[in-house]
Amino acid sequence: MPDFPAIEQIRAAARRIKPLVHRTPLLTCKSLDQLCGANLYFKCENFQKVGAFKARGATNVVYSLGEKDLERGVATHSSGNHGAALAYAARCRGARAYVVMPDNASPVKIAAVQGYGAEVIYSESTQQAREAALDEVVNRTGALFIHPYNDYRIIAGQATAALEMIEQVSNLDAVIAPVGGGGLLSGTALAVSALRPQVSVYGAEPAGADDAFRSLQAGYIIPSEKPDTIADGLRTSLGDLTFPIIQKHVTAIVTVSEGSIVEAMRLVWERMKIVIEPSSAVALAPLLTGSDGIKGTKIGLIVSGGNVNLDNLPWQA
Amino acid sequence: MPDFPAIEQIRAAARRIKPLVHRTPLLTCKSLDQLCGANLYFKCENFQKVGAFKARGATNVVYSLGEKDLERGVATHSSGNHGAALAYAARCRGARAYVVMPDNASPVKIAAVQGYGAEVIYSESTQQAREAALDEVVNRTGALFIHPYNDYRIIAGQATAALEMIEQVSNLDAVIAPVGGGGLLSGTALAVSALRPQVSVYGAEPAGADDAFRSLQAGYIIPSEKPDTIADGLRTSLGDLTFPIIQKHVTAIVTVSEGSIVEAMRLVWERMKIVIEPSSAVALAPLLTGSDGIKGTKIGLIVSGGNVNLDNLPWQA
Repeated sequence: MPDFPAIEQIRAAARRIKPLVHRTPLLTCKSLDQLCGANLYFKCENFQKVGAFKARGATNVVYSLGEKDLERGVATHSSGNHGAALAYAARCRGARAYVVMPDNASPVKIAAVQGYGAEVIYSESTQQAREAALDEVVNRTGALFIHPYNDYRIIAGQATAALEMIEQVSNLDAVIAPVGGGGLLSGTALAVSALRPQVSVYGAEPAGADDAFRSLQAGYIIPSEKPDTIADGLRTSLGDLTFPIIQKHVTAIVTVSEGSIVEAMRLVWERMKIVIEPSSAVALAPLLTGSDGIKGTKIGLIVSGGNVNLDNLPWQA
Repeated sequence: MPDFPAIEQIRAAARRIKPLVHRTPLLTCKSLDQLCGANLYFKCENFQKVGAFKARGATNVVYSLGEKDLERGVATHSSGNHGAALAYAARCRGARAYVVMPDNASPVKIAAVQGYGAEVIYSESTQQAREAALDEVVNRTGALFIHPYNDYRIIAGQATAALEMIEQVSNLDAVIAPVGGGGLLSGTALAVSALRPQVSVYGAEPAGADDAFRSLQAGYIIPSEKPDTIADGLRTSLGDLTFPIIQKHVTAIVTVSEGSIVEAMRLVWERMKIVIEPSSAVALAPLLTGSDGIKGTKIGLIVSGGNVNLDNLPWQA
């Protein structure tokens, strides 16, 4: 196994993707600060291209490819943001993209991926069916499979959000990122530990999909079985590339209830007037209890994305 | 009648309120630009203090008061943003505020006004009952009634949003603001006509509350009767101070259907990931038809606010 991506690789990713992604704003909110008793800095990847941080990793991979690989095109399976991000990145570089999507995916998400010019291949929604459909596509087209998180180029790309955040605010005490497959969290941890080793990095995870918490406790990867959470971006399990980085550079994983995720999401919509998806709210949820440990501290939160189904909001039973 | 507020008074308002309000960002959105065929610049007063541009006018009035007036306190009747804004401004300056609210106002709005330290006086929701309750409060406490829009100090305060917008983007072709009582639109028109006389200013209004459109046609004020629109901030009628300014400096009032308001609101939430209220969407709605007349032009829109009831969104029948 090669070494973890170094800060030079993260900086190279930042230069590579700069023309293709937004330098997203770092927002603050006085009323949420008062509620938590801390100073919060929200890195707003909901304003990112395709509405999520995933644009960073996908563009880094696609713009890292040589001409030969590029001609083959890229493929993935995704019901969410990675598929749209890969389609976006491929279109930017004039490459073909194939995205396997479950046949029960929302029409809006399918239209988004198609809107970026990718070919959508439908499969049943089981993991097995999706992987079989992906294999078929790869065999038929010769396209390169781009994993959504278990890829150092993806990790280095996702790390650029934290890289920017560190430039946008000084003297942070801690950084929190949501953790699903671990691409965002491992990238965040690499950037922060390299440049601000005194800053603690935490992962936040739904209690109903707490594979990262349990894996860190056990010392080996324990995949999620039947994850149950509205934070649809966080139902995946850690990969063998993301896990060791998290083991080494993340202070702790905190788990949160579904109720606190919904409460945090709604508070951000109401107080900050921004649209964030449930996965993003997972990073704020642990702070709402206003624990004494965070009083007066400066905390950076990675807001992972803003793609939600406006017809079905979680506070509307 | 004194002269309209001059640009010097608008600049003075900007200096006066600077420590108390946000310089809100001017956002762009590529996908909405493509949809409309124009370049749109959204002045995001949904990110303003109290979640609406009303903070500008209210702070300008309260910080214009002499010590003697200040001791009397301020009062208004409002079920919406002006009440919260006046309460906020009064608290900032350490003055008492009294806000008459209809007894069927949402608990969230009542809590917001009380949260800023104002005393809430309940009345029945008819205009007559609210005015009677306000009279009673003013007689009892000696507080100064601060009108939500028919006041040159309010108009000069609201004008500061357009003043900032003009600094944030050059070479605009047109500016659109929603129109209810006309405080925002008249202020916008004064700032733009003074500093960018070549830029056209338009008002946007729900067809179900089109008193400004009809008043401009007639040449005299025709108040709204039974206004019927989800844009709750725009149900009021023009005042005798706002109307002449609009007559002189606004190119035209465009009216929009309820359906197009809902569509515009939803598009902004989905594409821009920001929470805006129906009144704000009224300014975007006329552009969605992608008429040839706006192709390639640069249009500034005033996003008036972001205070919505998240339990009752207009696309959820």
